[in-house]
Amino acid sequence: MAAGIYSARQKLQTLLITKEFGGQMTKKAVAIENYPGFEKISGLQLSQKFEKHLRKQGIEIERDSVSLIKKADSLFYITTGNRQKFEARAVIVASGADPRPLEVPGEKKYIGRGVSYCATCDAPLFAGKEVAVIGGGNAGFETAVALSRWAEKIYILERSGKLAADEANQEMARRTKRIQTITNVDLKKIDGEQFVHSIVYQDSKTGKKTALRVEGVFVEIGNVPATGFVKNLVEFNNRDEIKINPGTNMTKTPGLFAAGDATDIKYKQIVIAAGQGTQAALSVSQYLK
Amino acid sequence: MAAGIYSARQKLQTLLITKEFGGQMTKKAVAIENYPGFEKISGLQLSQKFEKHLRKQGIEIERDSVSLIKKADSLFYITTGNRQKFEARAVIVASGADPRPLEVPGEKKYIGRGVSYCATCDAPLFAGKEVAVIGGGNAGFETAVALSRWAEKIYILERSGKLAADEANQEMARRTKRIQTITNVDLKKIDGEQFVHSIVYQDSKTGKKTALRVEGVFVEIGNVPATGFVKNLVEFNNRDEIKINPGTNMTKTPGLFAAGDATDIKYKQIVIAAGQGTQAALSVSQYLK
Repeated sequence: MAAGIYSARQKLQTLLITKEFGGQMTKKAVAIENYPGFEKISGLQLSQKFEKHLRKQGIEIERDSVSLIKKADSLFYITTGNRQKFEARAVIVASGADPRPLEVPGEKKYIGRGVSYCATCDAPLFAGKEVAVIGGGNAGFETAVALSRWAEKIYILERSGKLAADEANQEMARRTKRIQTITNVDLKKIDGEQFVHSIVYQDSKTGKKTALRVEGVFVEIGNVPATGFVKNLVEFNNRDEIKINPGTNMTKTPGLFAAGDATDIKYKQIVIAAGQGTQAALSVSQYLK
Repeated sequence: MAAGIYSARQKLQTLLITKEFGGQMTKKAVAIENYPGFEKISGLQLSQKFEKHLRKQGIEIERDSVSLIKKADSLFYITTGNRQKFEARAVIVASGADPRPLEVPGEKKYIGRGVSYCATCDAPLFAGKEVAVIGGGNAGFETAVALSRWAEKIYILERSGKLAADEANQEMARRTKRIQTITNVDLKKIDGEQFVHSIVYQDSKTGKKTALRVEGVFVEIGNVPATGFVKNLVEFNNRDEIKINPGTNMTKTPGLFAAGDATDIKYKQIVIAAGQGTQAALSVSQYLK
């Protein structure tokens, strides 16, 4: 959205293709308190402010996904999920990232029937129940704290021997008295009948297997960049993030830029992504000149 | 301010030393319409929102300037304008930039008596008068348009043969019908008695000298990074901007970081600077670990 605001204000003829606005931001379980200028705001509200700001620029918007981008001569050819075709002299990929799946048996089967990637969306369904959050980083702890308003008991399960979350988040979790952390968890499967009723994990130190009765499994083990549609034109790092020139946001293909969580920038934060989108748009303007 | 918000939220023991909040932002003549989330807001208001957000983090603030930073072993020793001394294990320089002076005879003499670097502050003093804006970039045009609410006639004087301002800004200037642009201007001096009454310039193509009767001279020829206090610890580019590693914001001195307009980042924009401050704070957190 930042790239769109700046592209339009540079008087570039700009088309923004997206299925939805805000991405991960709108799915955060806790309020956002670190986007400078807003002391505390929900992700959805902040996303709506961005979207309103964007739409005020008179930018053209297509509600669609992108399935493929090709380049021939100095033009980009974009094909969308709805089989529309567009041409552009420059492209900014700001497609963010999707939740990383667990890839254990039962995960796919129980999506929407106990397995969730969005605590904000689904927390109220687990009122009075026991649930597991997979992942002991900040996202896992924030999700657990948000769930503690509803769930009776929350387990945070971490694969490694150490919780990576900030001390502030761990403290908040301790204060709820409903959150229990378990480390060295090698998750084996998700079991259930019509809905999830338990998970099975192995202690990676002792080898002991445990079945834990939970009715919800919230997956918070990071993200996968949503960049498959551009894989023939860019280089990836080992996390499938698009490598960019950090000064210009250009990828290895001239005219193709990337910004935000889809790229190899180190810190994934809203204000950093917004700054990156801005920089990419200004670089595009200069590239086209 | 972004660096302060993030440092405090990382639970780092943070001291922020500044004489004032907002810097250039608070002196902008026109509203800010490109910080994502706020469709239109004055620089002063946006700065106040940032400051309020910052103060909510319970951060320690010293209203002082920094005159020197030294490093010995792995500690930084900071001396302030009021001769206070502080020690730190890491430092973020986010001191922005000051307006670049013209360096022509009469400039210093008439500061506050016709010569101004801040149209927002001084525009109303020139109601019904003729004024010159020095600099044909976006800042010069924005200043001229802001002045057109008050001044009877505004000349934009540009040293080169070409106006660098965006077409949108040039169009806005034309619509006011009070703004005249002159290129190839080699400014020679600012004349006056108690106050400015004229300027003298030479056409750099024809060699012809002209005296222009104006009572105000607004200087908009760019900025000089405010970084003298750290010159023994960093490398500068040819614009006196601090060279940083764009991925981490670290300077050539381990533990010394820089962010925003004081650095060699290409585009000087509020949201980019905020993203940079955020990145610097997260890098400091990692550096200290």
